[in-house]
Amino acid sequence: MAKIILTGDRPTGRLHVGHYVGSLRRRVELQNSGEFDKIFIMIADAQALTDNFDNPEKVRQNIIEVALDYLSAGLDPAKSTLFVQSQISELTELTFFYANLVTVSRLQRNPTVKSEIKMRNFETSIPVGFFTYPISQAADITAFKATVVPAGEDQLPMIEQTREIVRKFNSIYDEVLVEPDVLLPENEACMRLPGIDGKQKMSKSLGNCIYLSDTESDVKKKIMSMYTDPTHIQISDPGHLEGNCVFTYLDAFSKPEHFEEYLPEYHNLDELKEHYTRGGLGDVKIKKFLNNVIQEELAPIRARRAEFEKDIPAVYEILKKGSDAAREVAAQTLSEVKQAMKINYFDDEELIRVQSEKYQGV
Amino acid sequence: MAKIILTGDRPTGRLHVGHYVGSLRRRVELQNSGEFDKIFIMIADAQALTDNFDNPEKVRQNIIEVALDYLSAGLDPAKSTLFVQSQISELTELTFFYANLVTVSRLQRNPTVKSEIKMRNFETSIPVGFFTYPISQAADITAFKATVVPAGEDQLPMIEQTREIVRKFNSIYDEVLVEPDVLLPENEACMRLPGIDGKQKMSKSLGNCIYLSDTESDVKKKIMSMYTDPTHIQISDPGHLEGNCVFTYLDAFSKPEHFEEYLPEYHNLDELKEHYTRGGLGDVKIKKFLNNVIQEELAPIRARRAEFEKDIPAVYEILKKGSDAAREVAAQTLSEVKQAMKINYFDDEELIRVQSEKYQGV
Repeated sequence: MAKIILTGDRPTGRLHVGHYVGSLRRRVELQNSGEFDKIFIMIADAQALTDNFDNPEKVRQNIIEVALDYLSAGLDPAKSTLFVQSQISELTELTFFYANLVTVSRLQRNPTVKSEIKMRNFETSIPVGFFTYPISQAADITAFKATVVPAGEDQLPMIEQTREIVRKFNSIYDEVLVEPDVLLPENEACMRLPGIDGKQKMSKSLGNCIYLSDTESDVKKKIMSMYTDPTHIQISDPGHLEGNCVFTYLDAFSKPEHFEEYLPEYHNLDELKEHYTRGGLGDVKIKKFLNNVIQEELAPIRARRAEFEKDIPAVYEILKKGSDAAREVAAQTLSEVKQAMKINYFDDEELIRVQSEKYQGV
Repeated sequence: MAKIILTGDRPTGRLHVGHYVGSLRRRVELQNSGEFDKIFIMIADAQALTDNFDNPEKVRQNIIEVALDYLSAGLDPAKSTLFVQSQISELTELTFFYANLVTVSRLQRNPTVKSEIKMRNFETSIPVGFFTYPISQAADITAFKATVVPAGEDQLPMIEQTREIVRKFNSIYDEVLVEPDVLLPENEACMRLPGIDGKQKMSKSLGNCIYLSDTESDVKKKIMSMYTDPTHIQISDPGHLEGNCVFTYLDAFSKPEHFEEYLPEYHNLDELKEHYTRGGLGDVKIKKFLNNVIQEELAPIRARRAEFEKDIPAVYEILKKGSDAAREVAAQTLSEVKQAMKINYFDDEELIRVQSEKYQGV
C-alpha cells in the first residue's frame, strides 16, 4: 500500500517555533526522507472558520502567512501538495455522509473536543461546526487515503474517531476507506513548547510566541526576556530546570555540535544542566547560548521567507495548483464512496434495468 | 422578489393518501396556479440516509417510487423541477458552512428534532447526521432561495431554524440568503390523516396506509375494513365522529358534488354527520360512499402511473434533468455564499494585490 501523509494547520496566525519543533521540522524531514509516496499539507481554513466564523478576515489574511511559513521552513511544492481546505468541496460531502456513522454521544465523549471546548470558553454555545469537526477531520484524512498522520498525543482521540468511521463505512458499504496511523513526535520537549513567559502554550493573545517570521533582533529580545527560575537570583544560587523555559527550549533545539561552536566549556546539554542546578551559572549566559542555537535554525528560514515574500502572487499560485491537485484526489475518493453507497443512481444501469423489469412484469 | 417554492419527501416508501392530502395535492394546485416563478420538488434521499444509513438499498429503491407518485399525482417536469438531493453536492457545502452559525444547544431545543428522535427510539445513539438535519434542511431551502415552503405545523420549528441561519449569515457576511415563509395546509383534516386502523399516523410497518399506487380493489378492501366507532354496534346506535377514520377521511376528501353523485339523500357532509351521530346510519353505507369519493380522486392518478411505469428509464431521465437544473441554481447560490464569506481566495485579485503590497512595503 502507498505511504501517504496528511497533515496541516489552522490559519489563525503566523506559525511560531512551537509549531516548528512540534510538527513542521519533522514534516520537512519526512518530506525529504523519500519514504512517502504522497504528502498532503492542508491549510485548514474551513476548520478555522468553525470557531472564527464571525471573523473570516482573520482566517483569510493568515492563509498566506502560513503558506510563507511552510515554504520558508522547507516544504517543497515539488514534493508535497500544499492546499487550502475550503477549496476542496468534496471534503464537505464526505463530512456529510460520515456524520451518519457517528453518534452525538460519541462526539461528546471525545476528550480532544472536550478540552478544546473548555479552552475556548464556549460553555453552552458550541457551534455545531466546531462540535462536529472530528468528522470533518476524518473526511480530510480519508479523502487522501492517508496512512500516516503526524500529530501530537492530544490528537490521538481524533485519529481514533477517524479510524472508527473508516471501519464503520467499510463494513456497511464497501472497502473503500483507509485506516490511518498516528506518527507521534520523537522528542518529548517538542510536543508542547511553552510560551517564553513559561505559560502552558504559546498564544498570540498572550504575546509569548517566537514566530518563524520574527526578525533576528526580535528573537534575541524575546529570548533574553524568557522566564527561567524565579528562585535563581544570585549566579551562585542553585538553579531549577523544571518549568525553566530556556532549558525546555534547549531540549527542543540544541545539538552537541552547538556546544562545540558556541559554548565549548561544555560538551553537551547534560553538563550545562548539571552546572546550572549546582549553582554558579547565570541566566544571561545560557540565554545567549540559546539565542545562538535558535538563530542558527531560523536564519535560513528567514532568508527563504524574504525570497518568497518578493512574489506573493506566485505563492497563491502554488496553493492554487496544490488545491487543484488535491481536489482531483478527493474527487476520486468521493466517487468511490458514492459508488459504495450506491447513490450514483443515474450512472447505475443495473438499477434502472431492474426497476424497468419490475414494472414490465419480466 | 421572485416567488419560489421548495418542498419534497424522504424516499423511504411509496407515497400514501396521507402524503397526498397533506401536501402533494396542494403542491399540484400551487404548481398549476401560475403564481410561482419556480418550483423545486426534492426527493430527499440524503436526508433519508441520516436514519437509514445502514440500509441505503431501501432509499435507493424508493426514489423511483416517489418519482412515479409525483408524476402520477400531477407534478409536471415542465413546470416543476423534480430533483434528487444527493446529486446536488453544493447542498453539503452549504450545510458545512451553516453548521458554524448554529449552536449544539439550539439544535437540542428544536421541538421537531426532539419529537423525531423520540419517534425513532434513538435514545442516546442519535446519528450526528440526523441530529443536524435542520441545518441540512436550511441548506436545501436557501440553495434555491425559496420564499415559500409548504409544510405542516410540526415543521414550523424547522423553518424557524432556517430563518435564524439566514438572518445570522446575512448579518455576519452579506445579504445573500432569503428568509422563507411557511405555507400551512388549509384543511385541518389534511394535516394529519390517520392510518385506516385509527392509529395516529400512517406507517408502512403498521400496514395501515392507502397508497396512491394501490389497485382499485385494494383501496376498497382497506376502506371497508376501516376503524370507525367501536360503540356503534347496531345501525340504530348513535355514532361518534371523534377518532372515526371514515369521517376524518371524508373531511379530507369529500366535496358537496360527491353527495349529488353518490349519496343524493344528503346535501353535504354536515347532514351526513348529523344523521350518523343521531343513530340510524350504518358504517357500510358511509364506507361505500368514501370508497366512491376516494376512487374518483385516485383513478386518474392510477391511470397516469400506469403510463409512466411503461418507461422507467424516461422517469430517471426526468430526475436527472431536474437534478442538473437544480444543481446549476444551487451552484450559483454557493458561489455567492463563498464570495460573501470571502473564501474565494484564488479569484480574489484584491486580496492578492493587498498582500503583495504589504510585503513590498508599498
